[in-house]
Amino acid sequence: MALLQRIRRQANRPATGELRLGIGDDCALLRLKPGEEMAVTTDLSIAGRHFHLEWHPPEAIGHRTLARGLSDIAAMGARPVAAFLSLGLPRELTVARGRSPSWADRFLAGFLALADVYQTPLAGGDLAESSLAVADIVLLGAVPQRKALLRSGAQPGDLLYVTGALGGSAAGLALLRECGAPVSRAAVHAPKADNPLAPHLWPQPRIAQGLWLRRNRALTAAIDLSDGLSTDLDHLCAESGVTAVIDAAALPLHPGATLEQALHGGEDYELLFTARPNVVLPRGIAGVAVTQIGTIARRRSGQPSVVLIDESGLRRPLLPGGWQHFF
Amino acid sequence: MALLQRIRRQANRPATGELRLGIGDDCALLRLKPGEEMAVTTDLSIAGRHFHLEWHPPEAIGHRTLARGLSDIAAMGARPVAAFLSLGLPRELTVARGRSPSWADRFLAGFLALADVYQTPLAGGDLAESSLAVADIVLLGAVPQRKALLRSGAQPGDLLYVTGALGGSAAGLALLRECGAPVSRAAVHAPKADNPLAPHLWPQPRIAQGLWLRRNRALTAAIDLSDGLSTDLDHLCAESGVTAVIDAAALPLHPGATLEQALHGGEDYELLFTARPNVVLPRGIAGVAVTQIGTIARRRSGQPSVVLIDESGLRRPLLPGGWQHFF
Repeated sequence: MALLQRIRRQANRPATGELRLGIGDDCALLRLKPGEEMAVTTDLSIAGRHFHLEWHPPEAIGHRTLARGLSDIAAMGARPVAAFLSLGLPRELTVARGRSPSWADRFLAGFLALADVYQTPLAGGDLAESSLAVADIVLLGAVPQRKALLRSGAQPGDLLYVTGALGGSAAGLALLRECGAPVSRAAVHAPKADNPLAPHLWPQPRIAQGLWLRRNRALTAAIDLSDGLSTDLDHLCAESGVTAVIDAAALPLHPGATLEQALHGGEDYELLFTARPNVVLPRGIAGVAVTQIGTIARRRSGQPSVVLIDESGLRRPLLPGGWQHFF
Repeated sequence: MALLQRIRRQANRPATGELRLGIGDDCALLRLKPGEEMAVTTDLSIAGRHFHLEWHPPEAIGHRTLARGLSDIAAMGARPVAAFLSLGLPRELTVARGRSPSWADRFLAGFLALADVYQTPLAGGDLAESSLAVADIVLLGAVPQRKALLRSGAQPGDLLYVTGALGGSAAGLALLRECGAPVSRAAVHAPKADNPLAPHLWPQPRIAQGLWLRRNRALTAAIDLSDGLSTDLDHLCAESGVTAVIDAAALPLHPGATLEQALHGGEDYELLFTARPNVVLPRGIAGVAVTQIGTIARRRSGQPSVVLIDESGLRRPLLPGGWQHFF
C-alpha cells in the first residue's frame, strides 16, 4: 500500500498556482496565467524495450520516465506545470520484501525526486495490474502564446547547436549491458562526474536552457535529443524543409562515447537547435555547454536531409540510425 | 504503415480554436478561452485486464479506450478539447492481412469515429512495440474557472441521481464471456436498441448531460460510473464526508441486467450526481433518462458510506464491490 500512500501524500500538498485540483477527483484542474498556452506531451516506456528490470535500478527507471517528458517540455521552451503517470505493474513489483521497499516504491522515489527538482507536481494518473511493466508519462507545461520553440523554423544560413555532451547515455547503456547484472547501489549513486553510468541512468532535462533560449528569442527551431542525433536532426530538417551539414570533429562527445554513439545513440536528452548566424550565444547556459556542430543549408531535391563531414573531411549522407518507433 | 498515415491525416487537419499545434512537434500546444481552466485525466487500458483480444472487436476497444477518458471529462461538466493516445502493441497487431486492415487500424477506426462525434482531435501520443497490448488515453477538457463538478460537494439532504441505465455493460460482458469467440461483425454493428452487447462495446460518454448539469448549476457533486455504482458512490461519499442511502427498487436496471450487475458491474459510464432537494431536474437530458435512486445523509461514525434498501425494504450496508485497481 505504500505506493498509493506516497501518491496520496502528493495529492495532499497544497495546490500550486497552476494546479487547482490534484489527485482524487475524476480529473485534475489546471489554470494558466493570462497569455499563456499549454504544451502537452506523452511518452510510453515499456519493460524490455525502454527499460530493463534486470539492469536498471528502479529509481533510475522512475527518473528516466519523468525525464523523457520534461525533456519535451524543455524543447518547447516551456516551464513544467504538472505530470500525470499511468503505471501498469506486475503485482510482485508492488510488494515490499521484508524491510526493503517494493520495486514500485523505489520507482516512485526516483520519479518524485526529479519532480521535486523541477517543481512539477504529480497531479494524477492511473494504476493497474499488468503482466508487463509499463509507464506512460504525461507532462503539461506553460509557455507564452506564440512563443514556443518549434521544430519547423530552421532557415538556410542558420547555425546548428547542441547543449551538453553526446553519446554518454549510449555508452552507459553499453556498460550496463556488459555487466548484465543489477547495478550495485554504490555504482548507481556514485558522484556524477565520476560515474560513467550517470548520463544513462540520470539524464538531466534541459528545462533551464530551454527557458533561457526562448526568453532570449535566440532560436529559429529546437528539438530534444531523445531518439539520437541522426534521427532527431532528420525530424527537425523535415519539419523545417532544410538540409543540415554537421561536422564530426565539432561534436561534443561525452568522455567514453564513440562517434557512432554520439550520432545514433539516443536518450541524451540534450537540446538541438538552430539560430540565425548573427546571434551570439554564450558558451554555456546554466552550467551546460553550448556547442556549434554545423550549419543549415537550402534543401535541394535528391539531397539527403543530413550531411556529415567526417573526420577526414569527406561529406557523406547521414541516415537516421537512432531509435525506431516501428510504426 | 496505415496506422501512422491515419494519425498523420489527423495531424494535417486544421487546428481547432483550442488546439494550436497537433502531432509532429515535441509537444502539442493548446489554448483555452479566458476564464477557463483545463481538466485532465488519464486512463490505462491493458490487454487481459481492461480488454480481451479474443472477445472484443478492435473497433470497440478503440471506442472504449476513448470513452473512458471522455466520461471523466463529462463528470467534471467540461467540454473535451483534445485527446492523446499512447499505444504499445505487438508487431503482429500492426500488420494488415491481405485486404483486411490490421488490428491497429481497426482500433484506430473505432477510436476516431467516437472522437469525431465529440469533436475531440487526436493531438498527440506515443507509439511503441510491446509484447502486451496497452493503451493509455489522456483527455483534456475545458471548464469555466471554479465551475467544475467535483466529487466533494454532496451535503446531507441532497437527492442522489443517475443518468441512463445500470448494469448493461456487465450484462454484455457476461454474454461475451459465454460466447468466448470473436463477436461477428453483424452482432457488433447491430442496431443499438436490439443489441445486448452495445452498452458494453459502445458505451456513450455523457458529455452533453454533464455540460447541461454544470450550466444549469443544478449539482452539488458528480462522478462517472466507471468502477461500478457501489465503488464510485463510495468514492463520492468519502470525498464529501457523507453517507448515501440508495433504494434497490428505484435503480434503472438495463434490460437483461441483474441487480448485482447494476450495483457492482462497472463500465456503464453513466453520471452519478447529487442535487439539493429543492432543485427540479428534468426526467431526461439530451435523450438520456435521469432517475433519482436515493438520498444523502449525515455521516455518523461507524456507519457505512453506502446503505442499500433492498427489495424487501431491509437496510443493509453496501460495500464497494466493483473494479479494484489493486494498489
